[in-house]
Amino acid sequence: MKKISVLGSTGSIGTQTLDVVAMHPDSFDVDGLAAGSNTALLLEQVRRFQPRRVSVSTKELAEQIRPELPSGIELFYGSEGLVEIAAGGDADTVVTAVVGSVGLQSTLAAIEAGRHIGLANKETLVTAGHLVTELANRKGVKLLPIDSEHSAIFQCLNGENREDVSSITITASGGSFRDYTREQLKKVSVEDALRHPNWSMGAKITIDSATMVNKGLEVIEAHWLFGLPYEQINVLLHPESIIHSYVEFRDSSIVAQLGNPDMRVPIQYALTYPERWESPAARLSLAAIGRLTFREMDFVRFPALKLAIECGKAGGTATTAFNAANEIAVARFLRHEIPFLRIEEIIEEVLQRLVNVNQPDLQQIQHCDEMTRELAAKL
Amino acid sequence: MKKISVLGSTGSIGTQTLDVVAMHPDSFDVDGLAAGSNTALLLEQVRRFQPRRVSVSTKELAEQIRPELPSGIELFYGSEGLVEIAAGGDADTVVTAVVGSVGLQSTLAAIEAGRHIGLANKETLVTAGHLVTELANRKGVKLLPIDSEHSAIFQCLNGENREDVSSITITASGGSFRDYTREQLKKVSVEDALRHPNWSMGAKITIDSATMVNKGLEVIEAHWLFGLPYEQINVLLHPESIIHSYVEFRDSSIVAQLGNPDMRVPIQYALTYPERWESPAARLSLAAIGRLTFREMDFVRFPALKLAIECGKAGGTATTAFNAANEIAVARFLRHEIPFLRIEEIIEEVLQRLVNVNQPDLQQIQHCDEMTRELAAKL
Repeated sequence: MKKISVLGSTGSIGTQTLDVVAMHPDSFDVDGLAAGSNTALLLEQVRRFQPRRVSVSTKELAEQIRPELPSGIELFYGSEGLVEIAAGGDADTVVTAVVGSVGLQSTLAAIEAGRHIGLANKETLVTAGHLVTELANRKGVKLLPIDSEHSAIFQCLNGENREDVSSITITASGGSFRDYTREQLKKVSVEDALRHPNWSMGAKITIDSATMVNKGLEVIEAHWLFGLPYEQINVLLHPESIIHSYVEFRDSSIVAQLGNPDMRVPIQYALTYPERWESPAARLSLAAIGRLTFREMDFVRFPALKLAIECGKAGGTATTAFNAANEIAVARFLRHEIPFLRIEEIIEEVLQRLVNVNQPDLQQIQHCDEMTRELAAKL
Repeated sequence: MKKISVLGSTGSIGTQTLDVVAMHPDSFDVDGLAAGSNTALLLEQVRRFQPRRVSVSTKELAEQIRPELPSGIELFYGSEGLVEIAAGGDADTVVTAVVGSVGLQSTLAAIEAGRHIGLANKETLVTAGHLVTELANRKGVKLLPIDSEHSAIFQCLNGENREDVSSITITASGGSFRDYTREQLKKVSVEDALRHPNWSMGAKITIDSATMVNKGLEVIEAHWLFGLPYEQINVLLHPESIIHSYVEFRDSSIVAQLGNPDMRVPIQYALTYPERWESPAARLSLAAIGRLTFREMDFVRFPALKLAIECGKAGGTATTAFNAANEIAVARFLRHEIPFLRIEEIIEEVLQRLVNVNQPDLQQIQHCDEMTRELAAKL
């Protein structure tokens, strides 16, 4: 019996994680669930998965659901509640599926408590990769990627020697606006942006796919997860999202992981690694698909990706600032406050104004994060 | 220093094996070379790689080259010579690159002597898979595939559990006549057939690609190499030959191996496994290629593949007969004695006339092989 806790249980990755748990009821046991404000769904999950501990975002929401919880369940709230679900209890693996840099503190707490991490919150590595990977190494904790791209690379590295890797290539569908010119991008709406061609995901990551910020965050995440310099990390446009990513070895051999777009597969792999269990995911038929296509990444068309990689190379708090500025800008776009192209302008302007701090500690990272958010909200 | 012997050193795989050896002169040492009748090339190889033991196909050829060999080199000939190179000396790995069922006896001798096998002679497993794999298991000898398809699958299985495999898929370029109708195939010439679209290979295997017999032999080989029932082995048309083959796991995840068509890569992997060494093979750029295409295998268009799989399922001497009939028929086609489509007819007619022997021993296999050849020569 594998004990699982889920941070962000009512979001897209959280609900799919519980789908995976539901497929193997005799093998998984849910220890804790942390949700935001979707208490109706959380209560449904509580009834179905019978966790021992739950948390919601605020004290008010906690008071509201308390009468509806079965007796014996421990109830928490706020960022302390998130940490409690991450590090308290006795989960073997904690799935970090909260969106944004709020996941950092709870992930660090889970690692400190010796939990393996099913890592879906990419901002954790983007904002504090050096702290997270160092702590995970020290605690002997596995960082098991849940992003389909990183799971692909993780799978391709199975049984291989890291020193034999010559490069990794992260594939990018190109997002909702892949075939739009920069001129056309000026007028796109929130509704247009939320229509991702291949993956069904949350709103923030769908916008991040359209700006290619998501791919930038993935490159930074890959740098930390796989310990590779940015020069060995490539991005390739692959509209069909069938090859999820691949590794090239020094003998010129490429090993790739493929499948239909279904997040339940990388989620399950993170939970069952090094085993592979049955999955109801639709089998891939390459004959039915007929063709896979590939194009060089266009860094002029997608300047935010270039910027992300530059921040990654600069290191320090640059990636924290990149990520925080993007979070605010996307939120403003989703509230119809700014046009689509303003997202990348805001990130760029913020980065020009901030001073990069090298080898930041957690406090410096949090300070940079807050300052960036304030600035990005006003630009 | 890894000691290598090569059976069939002057053929296509043999010369490419020595190319790989030449790229890593400080890591490889050539113990023995066995050639057929291309003594000029063999003598050149002797000067360059300084083996301790060589063999040629006949006593006459041996007498002819004896004066030109440096002193101290042991000289052998005939099928006993082949066995001597395979099992005598002190090679760590023997590359079995002779074409046809002549490779069987020497491969068995090499395994018996505890040599790891770089297996390029697919007829070895096709005609006597049960004997070869049983002996290799008993002797703790590795059968390292050199065919690009089997090397691909072997690589995709790295670090994985065999029980997690749900199927393997061998890709097929479709050969020289991929887009010809059955009607058009009636009139094709030897010269047409020898033009393979992707791979530069020997004459026999190029014809086998055009008839899809090669893919049939590969399916049977895969059955023995990876211990999978035929129901779990698929064949997919993939004209570009970039995905060399792939494995589907029970979680629906597919792991594939890709690269430019260059036999030096799988040859080197068989020699360096589990390590990967630098290779001068051209790196694959999926962006430059732009697209990969796939089609269902057409068993009506390629009846020889269907027949091969049926023989595989029947077991016993059926695959021996299939292979021997094909060898004779291809030789007759290459001598312009029969038209192209007669190759598969001869195989089919031979199989209809022979009685299948279950669990044959080596003598029964050799008897079937001889009988089949006699019959196929007369049909």
